[in-house]
Amino acid sequence: MRNFRIVIQYEGTRYQGWQRQGTTQNTLQGKFEALLSKIAGTPVEIQASGRTDAGVHALGQTANFHMNTELSCEELLDKLNQYLPEDVAVISCQEAAPRFHARLNAVGKTYCYRIHNSKIPAVFDRRLVWQIEQQLDVDAMKTAAKYLVGTHDFAAFTSAKNKKKSTVRSIESILFEQNGADIRISFRGDGFLFHMVRILTGTLVEVGLGVRRPEEIAAILDGKDRQKAGMLAPASGLCLMEVYYQ
Amino acid sequence: MRNFRIVIQYEGTRYQGWQRQGTTQNTLQGKFEALLSKIAGTPVEIQASGRTDAGVHALGQTANFHMNTELSCEELLDKLNQYLPEDVAVISCQEAAPRFHARLNAVGKTYCYRIHNSKIPAVFDRRLVWQIEQQLDVDAMKTAAKYLVGTHDFAAFTSAKNKKKSTVRSIESILFEQNGADIRISFRGDGFLFHMVRILTGTLVEVGLGVRRPEEIAAILDGKDRQKAGMLAPASGLCLMEVYYQ
Repeated sequence: MRNFRIVIQYEGTRYQGWQRQGTTQNTLQGKFEALLSKIAGTPVEIQASGRTDAGVHALGQTANFHMNTELSCEELLDKLNQYLPEDVAVISCQEAAPRFHARLNAVGKTYCYRIHNSKIPAVFDRRLVWQIEQQLDVDAMKTAAKYLVGTHDFAAFTSAKNKKKSTVRSIESILFEQNGADIRISFRGDGFLFHMVRILTGTLVEVGLGVRRPEEIAAILDGKDRQKAGMLAPASGLCLMEVYYQ
Repeated sequence: MRNFRIVIQYEGTRYQGWQRQGTTQNTLQGKFEALLSKIAGTPVEIQASGRTDAGVHALGQTANFHMNTELSCEELLDKLNQYLPEDVAVISCQEAAPRFHARLNAVGKTYCYRIHNSKIPAVFDRRLVWQIEQQLDVDAMKTAAKYLVGTHDFAAFTSAKNKKKSTVRSIESILFEQNGADIRISFRGDGFLFHMVRILTGTLVEVGLGVRRPEEIAAILDGKDRQKAGMLAPASGLCLMEVYYQ
């Protein structure tokens, strides 16, 4: 069996997330497995670097699957793009080592959260941003973000209920880019907990709105209590940009 | 009666163009007139700088309307954005001189045509581009575009049937920007005939595909025959960027 590694883009708006859930749900994993199984003539399973939530987008999701086929990587890429819906594309396809696993071998990820900070609605990017009318204090958000960089227990910043799994993660950097009303916050780290980037963003936005002080972040981390952190930012603004492997 | 001048953005995908056509058609003029008439409590008509075809977008369409209202420009802008659908926004609103007319006073326009030149589908911009898989020779397209700049009879480059109206127009510049698979062609001129930018683009693309030579453009202009020019490029790639007034 050959092991293929592909990089995928999708606009998540129409999907109930990456992960397959029964047969009636519209998921990205479900779409890919149905198509790959049809091409192979036998069931094919696909593993992504991680799940993305319903409505979350990807510019560089990475996945792998084992399949018996005579097709070259280029032919397989063309075939996938021919049959995938228009809000999903495969941007690269290569043969990987037999043991390569897109989730287990991932050593880091970058997510980008986009905010449209204006009372004028974003017409063209409306599905890709969180629209916030009130002006954000981006400098205060940058100050708050500094407390988050590094290795911390992010228990306060996840909706995950499993108390047995470690909630310690390392954030390597949080970078802000502002271009008029368009604010992009890029989170790079070794891994992210369920809802983590969206709760981090929701908390940073509350700082930007002036309802929290940047210094509160330290206490929220220490408290390890989801109730102390900020709101869950909408899925529409979030995009998985890149997955890193050794 | 006060005269208001507004600048509008829209993603044209869902609309049968700017111009009102009966009551059953989904047009931008129709949407605006229904909303403005509701705000005013009396029928209001709106004039844009020009029609855009079904499916064509705008980043800077300009329009004006006469209306009796106590609302300030800012209040009117907020009210319009509150009730307009999410694929339409008003980005500015100001009071104009009583005789200002968005179409009659326009002295120039810039349109941008976007091509996604790749066999990898454009996921996020799929509604805003023309996707062309075969690689285009952009240098040949630039050479061809030089024949179009200046004042010419563009009879070959319009679908308009009215033989009495002048088809002479001046194109001030045709600029190409290329960023990976993204090719943008900006046409600036004093005015454009029905379908003109799309037929110009379709003809330039045929040059880029190697099925025409750049030098043929001169003969097409001379021939004044629509049949001699290239195909009509799809509406999805076209966007009205800006309208100029003296």
